[in-house]
Amino acid sequence: MQPKTQEMHDRLYAMLREEQIYRYAASVLNFDQETICPPAAREKQGEIGAALGSKAFIVTKNPAFTEAVEYLYEHRDELDSFDAAMVAARHKQYLADKNITPEKEHAYALAFNKAFVSWLTAKEKADYSLFAPDLAAVRDIQIERTALREDKCDNVFDTLIGDYERGLTQAVLDPIFDRMKERLIPLLARILASKKQIRTDFMTRTVTDEQQRQIADYLLDVIGFDKSRGAITLTEHPFTHDMSRNDVRVTTHFYPQMFDSSMFSVVHEGGHALFEQFCPEENDAHFLHEKTMGMHESVSRFYENRIGRSKEFIHLIFPKCREVFPQVLSDVTEEELYEALNVVRPTLKRTQADEFTYTFHIIIRYEIEKMILDGTADIADLPRIWNDKYEEYLGIRPGNDAEGILQDIHWTFGFGYFPTYAIGNLYNAMYLNTMKQHLDVPALVREGKLPVIRDWMAEHVFRMADRQTPEEWIKAITGRALTPDDYLDYLEEKYTALYEL
Amino acid sequence: MQPKTQEMHDRLYAMLREEQIYRYAASVLNFDQETICPPAAREKQGEIGAALGSKAFIVTKNPAFTEAVEYLYEHRDELDSFDAAMVAARHKQYLADKNITPEKEHAYALAFNKAFVSWLTAKEKADYSLFAPDLAAVRDIQIERTALREDKCDNVFDTLIGDYERGLTQAVLDPIFDRMKERLIPLLARILASKKQIRTDFMTRTVTDEQQRQIADYLLDVIGFDKSRGAITLTEHPFTHDMSRNDVRVTTHFYPQMFDSSMFSVVHEGGHALFEQFCPEENDAHFLHEKTMGMHESVSRFYENRIGRSKEFIHLIFPKCREVFPQVLSDVTEEELYEALNVVRPTLKRTQADEFTYTFHIIIRYEIEKMILDGTADIADLPRIWNDKYEEYLGIRPGNDAEGILQDIHWTFGFGYFPTYAIGNLYNAMYLNTMKQHLDVPALVREGKLPVIRDWMAEHVFRMADRQTPEEWIKAITGRALTPDDYLDYLEEKYTALYEL
Repeated sequence: MQPKTQEMHDRLYAMLREEQIYRYAASVLNFDQETICPPAAREKQGEIGAALGSKAFIVTKNPAFTEAVEYLYEHRDELDSFDAAMVAARHKQYLADKNITPEKEHAYALAFNKAFVSWLTAKEKADYSLFAPDLAAVRDIQIERTALREDKCDNVFDTLIGDYERGLTQAVLDPIFDRMKERLIPLLARILASKKQIRTDFMTRTVTDEQQRQIADYLLDVIGFDKSRGAITLTEHPFTHDMSRNDVRVTTHFYPQMFDSSMFSVVHEGGHALFEQFCPEENDAHFLHEKTMGMHESVSRFYENRIGRSKEFIHLIFPKCREVFPQVLSDVTEEELYEALNVVRPTLKRTQADEFTYTFHIIIRYEIEKMILDGTADIADLPRIWNDKYEEYLGIRPGNDAEGILQDIHWTFGFGYFPTYAIGNLYNAMYLNTMKQHLDVPALVREGKLPVIRDWMAEHVFRMADRQTPEEWIKAITGRALTPDDYLDYLEEKYTALYEL
Repeated sequence: MQPKTQEMHDRLYAMLREEQIYRYAASVLNFDQETICPPAAREKQGEIGAALGSKAFIVTKNPAFTEAVEYLYEHRDELDSFDAAMVAARHKQYLADKNITPEKEHAYALAFNKAFVSWLTAKEKADYSLFAPDLAAVRDIQIERTALREDKCDNVFDTLIGDYERGLTQAVLDPIFDRMKERLIPLLARILASKKQIRTDFMTRTVTDEQQRQIADYLLDVIGFDKSRGAITLTEHPFTHDMSRNDVRVTTHFYPQMFDSSMFSVVHEGGHALFEQFCPEENDAHFLHEKTMGMHESVSRFYENRIGRSKEFIHLIFPKCREVFPQVLSDVTEEELYEALNVVRPTLKRTQADEFTYTFHIIIRYEIEKMILDGTADIADLPRIWNDKYEEYLGIRPGNDAEGILQDIHWTFGFGYFPTYAIGNLYNAMYLNTMKQHLDVPALVREGKLPVIRDWMAEHVFRMADRQTPEEWIKAITGRALTPDDYLDYLEEKYTALYEL
């Protein structure tokens, strides 16, 4: 490193340490607010968190900070790969924000907040028309704001998708989603026409919180979660929260008549957690935290679906489940539990979707976001478009807007997020096929040797995630470019067998 | 308020709001660290908390801050009673710290830390001689530091006691503790000579965490804890943590073979919590938080012992306890439970002491602290003095230093704290007698109307606590000066009946 580069590097690090004090504290406050903070104190705690956020923001708005970022970005060939990736991300952020005045930012924040409030009311009243004007405002802001960005792509939607999955574009997604529909729509029809009887009566039997606590704890142990560097607790909407690789927290929620809900939530969030716990130690030291949403969902869904809902995993955990939940499983076989956990049943709600139908929910949102941003759909017309697509792809039609277009909060803060939910399944199907060339995955799962799988993931999937684009990353792991084929083949094989097609 | 006073007031408030951002965040981090933070992250989180503490400290060290405090203190007759109390406390703090240079402060901190480390080793090896030199250093620092304080009393020990219980002195404590010994030592002898058989076999029966969770939750409801402004969670050493009156958190610990441990811990901590939850709303708005330790212990012990271990309370909670702990209580009567919870049994360890013998542990420490500070005891000689006193007052003698003089951590950070543990019992005995002139306390407890008691406490005990000295406060509530008689009469009456003396 040249002396001047070293100087800028040291300056940047000093400011990143200062920023981290505020960000770290805000992060702990945020976790506290989502878990234990009593209702009456949430507003105050939110104010304190926002004040810390402002202080962090002020550090990075300092010209001394941006000067260092710009200089280091120009001289990134002198940096190690961690610093180079961190500086590149900071530089991109700088380009994205530099032309947005505080007044604009404030106006946008107010509009998003207004959209959030009207969405709440609209959802409660199942009346989309109450939300439509604010959704139009969100669209307009997204277009206006993107035009001001110096890191923008050729079109608005690609820029927004890239915020969650760097480098991913419609040019890649369009043919992928088309191919998926092509194969999945007829396959779904065959599944729904199947005569196969799957027993599900036991799935709603009552369990206690204590039983669910025991199983959650057991499942984290099974997948290889490191409890000395993590914790588990309860919340309303489960999530994973990481302060650093030494502090990764999984949350879950207990429903007395859905014993599988917390179980698979824990395995899903546990996947997210492993990704953070077993990424390179250097990441924290370099203030590097750039895993994409798609990468993260690939790992969480790998654990939830590819591992968690496999026959081998059910075989592994069945004795413990029966011991902890005798009232649920004493008259149930391993095979019956496997089948019940993999039932296909089209639903109107994305969050209640099974593994098979989930992708349709994402494709529908993707197609509609595209139409919103390229102007081919009128905002007022969206509910009809939404309902038609549900009917076309899933054969069901929402009875009202609340169970249809208003179900998700995401559009109150913009577009581009949903594709990451689908793309994760494609990544993990690809790297699982690679993994299987090196490891006997089914045997490892049956025998409870999941740490071996975790360690392979750490070496091949986690290690470079913060330092590569998703395109580079999946190519480096599998030797191939993104394709839906592995995932589609997997679904076809699994459900053909399950439904005896 | 004069314009200049208003100006200083506004300036001070702006800086207090700034300080609060850091203090509030540090407080959340601290709570997190004591409860859920994984072991591997504690050091990092401690660093972030310390950095926030420094930032808060810098705000109050600003000459603009001290100028405002001094001005407002001189003009405190223009302030409302909340501001006047807040400013007085800040002013006292300023006087206490102003002559302590950062270098001195740092040297003291190192010495306290050294004492902590050597205490840990000494306790582990049960060898007081390893701790003695550092205890001497702590004594010397306390003397040196007190000499530098501009708010000091006539002698060192009074200054230190006043840090925890403003205005309390040895002149008040000496005759109180002497009178207590005078009456309690012969009473203890009579109790121990009693032929009364108390059944305790069921006290070590095994209970589950879930059962303990249920009872803890129930007990908080019974005493009138407001869950919308508070929470309960688990920790190693139970404590109560308050961020504001809207956020008061009780913690507990479950022992499988001591079902009463968490129960009475919850009632004790719940008492602390009520004190914070039901103090005046104005306190938070005025940055006022000046309840003394003795006042706080008076409330927690009021709930734990005066309410919690009363016959009426056991009558109230017995049906629920039997329902939740059938394996413990199915062959136990209400009377047997009451008796078992009130057994008197001299122990070497303060933290395991029963209600009756507890005071002796405090008196012993008080007498020894006094000898340490006035030079009448040699540091090297303390274990003998300690052991002799245990033999004299409680009739038992520690077998080694670990179960004797080294049992508590407190001396690693100085002296003056212990008396507050004893004084709380005297306060609550006095105000309970006053309360009984207005409320039928036994009937309210039997009928589960504890919120009525809580509301009386809020009006008479909690309301002025942050704005009065303990002397003013107990006089205002009861019309009388501090006396041990109410407490001694209560003990005599209760244990004479229980042990059929």
